[in-house]
Amino acid sequence: MAAALSVARRGLGNTWPNPAVGCVLVRDGRVVGRGWTQPGGRPHAETEALARAGEQARGATAYVTLEPCSHWGRTPPCCDALIQAGVARVVVATGDPDPRVDGRGLQRLRDAGVIVELGLGGAEARAVNAGFARRITRGLPLVTLKLATTLDGRIATAGGESQWITGPEARREAHAIRARHDAILVGSGTVLADDPELTPRLPGTARVPLARVVADARLRTPLDSRLVLTARQVPTWIATRTNQRPGVLAPYLEAGVQILSVPRTRPGLDLGALLGALAQRGVTRVMAEGGAGLAAALLRGGFVDRIAWFHAPGIMGGDGLPAVQPLPLATLSAMPRFRRVASRPVGTDWLTELLREEDQEACSPGS
Amino acid sequence: MAAALSVARRGLGNTWPNPAVGCVLVRDGRVVGRGWTQPGGRPHAETEALARAGEQARGATAYVTLEPCSHWGRTPPCCDALIQAGVARVVVATGDPDPRVDGRGLQRLRDAGVIVELGLGGAEARAVNAGFARRITRGLPLVTLKLATTLDGRIATAGGESQWITGPEARREAHAIRARHDAILVGSGTVLADDPELTPRLPGTARVPLARVVADARLRTPLDSRLVLTARQVPTWIATRTNQRPGVLAPYLEAGVQILSVPRTRPGLDLGALLGALAQRGVTRVMAEGGAGLAAALLRGGFVDRIAWFHAPGIMGGDGLPAVQPLPLATLSAMPRFRRVASRPVGTDWLTELLREEDQEACSPGS
Repeated sequence: MAAALSVARRGLGNTWPNPAVGCVLVRDGRVVGRGWTQPGGRPHAETEALARAGEQARGATAYVTLEPCSHWGRTPPCCDALIQAGVARVVVATGDPDPRVDGRGLQRLRDAGVIVELGLGGAEARAVNAGFARRITRGLPLVTLKLATTLDGRIATAGGESQWITGPEARREAHAIRARHDAILVGSGTVLADDPELTPRLPGTARVPLARVVADARLRTPLDSRLVLTARQVPTWIATRTNQRPGVLAPYLEAGVQILSVPRTRPGLDLGALLGALAQRGVTRVMAEGGAGLAAALLRGGFVDRIAWFHAPGIMGGDGLPAVQPLPLATLSAMPRFRRVASRPVGTDWLTELLREEDQEACSPGS
Repeated sequence: MAAALSVARRGLGNTWPNPAVGCVLVRDGRVVGRGWTQPGGRPHAETEALARAGEQARGATAYVTLEPCSHWGRTPPCCDALIQAGVARVVVATGDPDPRVDGRGLQRLRDAGVIVELGLGGAEARAVNAGFARRITRGLPLVTLKLATTLDGRIATAGGESQWITGPEARREAHAIRARHDAILVGSGTVLADDPELTPRLPGTARVPLARVVADARLRTPLDSRLVLTARQVPTWIATRTNQRPGVLAPYLEAGVQILSVPRTRPGLDLGALLGALAQRGVTRVMAEGGAGLAAALLRGGFVDRIAWFHAPGIMGGDGLPAVQPLPLATLSAMPRFRRVASRPVGTDWLTELLREEDQEACSPGS
């Protein structure tokens, strides 16, 4: 199952709106086939593994990280494929929360005489597919907040200088985390300040393009920003308040930008509605990358599931720009607290990964 | 030598103005005696180890973390004791920078026919005695800056609430680090805000009292503060500007406080002069514990040798009180940077230990 979980993770960021699943077929103590959900969500992991195993699948045990599907989608159900291939036993890490499956896959296998076991590696499998499950059950994507600051939590000098606080290794690692997400979310202030491209700049990662999303109530994103200029190559969505005048939206639409209309709240957009709109479009995992206003709004709303915090070994002092705008907190007990799951050096910096306190998942934000 | 270094560390915080030294005697592959500098700096490590070994010291090898002394102080020189005990070979980690020794110890041993080797474990030994060496060579103590903040570098809410950001394990660890220092330095703002006692509250640690030092240019420390009220039990030094009126100083002196007169600069005291005054009094290791103004002033002056930074897994937002006041920085390249040497979990928090970038010491601030 560890091997199946490992290959499942390869799909993260590439399978949405589908879950990233892994499957390993074992016969006589030997691996005869491995597969994981392919870019775009098809073929499924089981199909891939069965194709590799061929005739050797007969009598084998399949280790699958998520309950095999039982319904016809664009392809026949994986349950039927496993049954037809003569797989004798299926070990499933966790059930599929999708109401179209939700136990029916296991039942279908059992009805066909296949031995079914459920639960091995369940916590890890649920962590891998936390974004998919959240989208299905709550209509929201999983949100990872990424921050890169000094030891004292600053992202720029008082004069606005921010390049670079962390080193090249940390920036590369941030790109790798980015590639395991479906969409990147930034505030319009970050677009104005940095004019970022927001693409994962690692070779071989994210073959499915990452959607770039700007929370931009007042539609401040410049038409000549890199995001807008590359909107035909990489999906670019601007979330802005409802009732923007069509004339204001037109040049963005012409440039290939998609507009998400979201109710406005003080001081920005209704982030619950924004994230809901992303989930409706199939997004299961969002990485929020900047800036301090967006981070504060996500924390205030309780939307942050995971944090990837890069700390550089420098100290900027109290006039540096804070990583998170005022929440503000009335008391210390109201402070949002997270659970640290890992901390590791990345070049001269280090990355601390944290989860929402109530989440008892076994894994780190990286997966 | 690893064993000698390990016992040497036991003395940290207890031996000033003397160095904390460890000595292990080995004969025929068996440890026949161990010793470390005793509280107050006497007896020396070698004397202790020789006393334990007795007759078995004859023909043994002595592993010593610092060059044995060659001069008469309150006790006879350790070189002579080693020679008289018949030790055949002395392995020394590093030379003693004290001009009264500085190679004379090694020479005296060689002259007596003892085999002498120098350098094994040298980097670690220099790290253990970095405070002693700094005091001898530069007239300054080693300064460890200790901070306990949220992920975003805050030490209190906008309303001033600060208890507790870190958990009990982190606070206990901070006390253990405190016990390995000779003096604690705080600003008067910390005294006014927290009325701290600043004693190491761990059983069995710091048998030699830790000196409590307040940097207090305007002499704001209240006469009814815990520090002043306990000044007869625990050394309490208030550093204030020169030319304070005797009438103002009198009640502090009557309470048992010692006054250090230090030139004033904007915005506080001349910290180089203050630290120099501490070194003159024998202090080799200072732990700076608060608050944000003192931290900024120490960083500005380039006085921070080591950092022990506790991060709690919470986020306070931009209106929280910053851990370090404005330095301020003109450019990002001017930012004080350190070298991370360790990061480890302490309860739900974690401790990152950093050294001055140019220091190539092998060890962590804990030692």
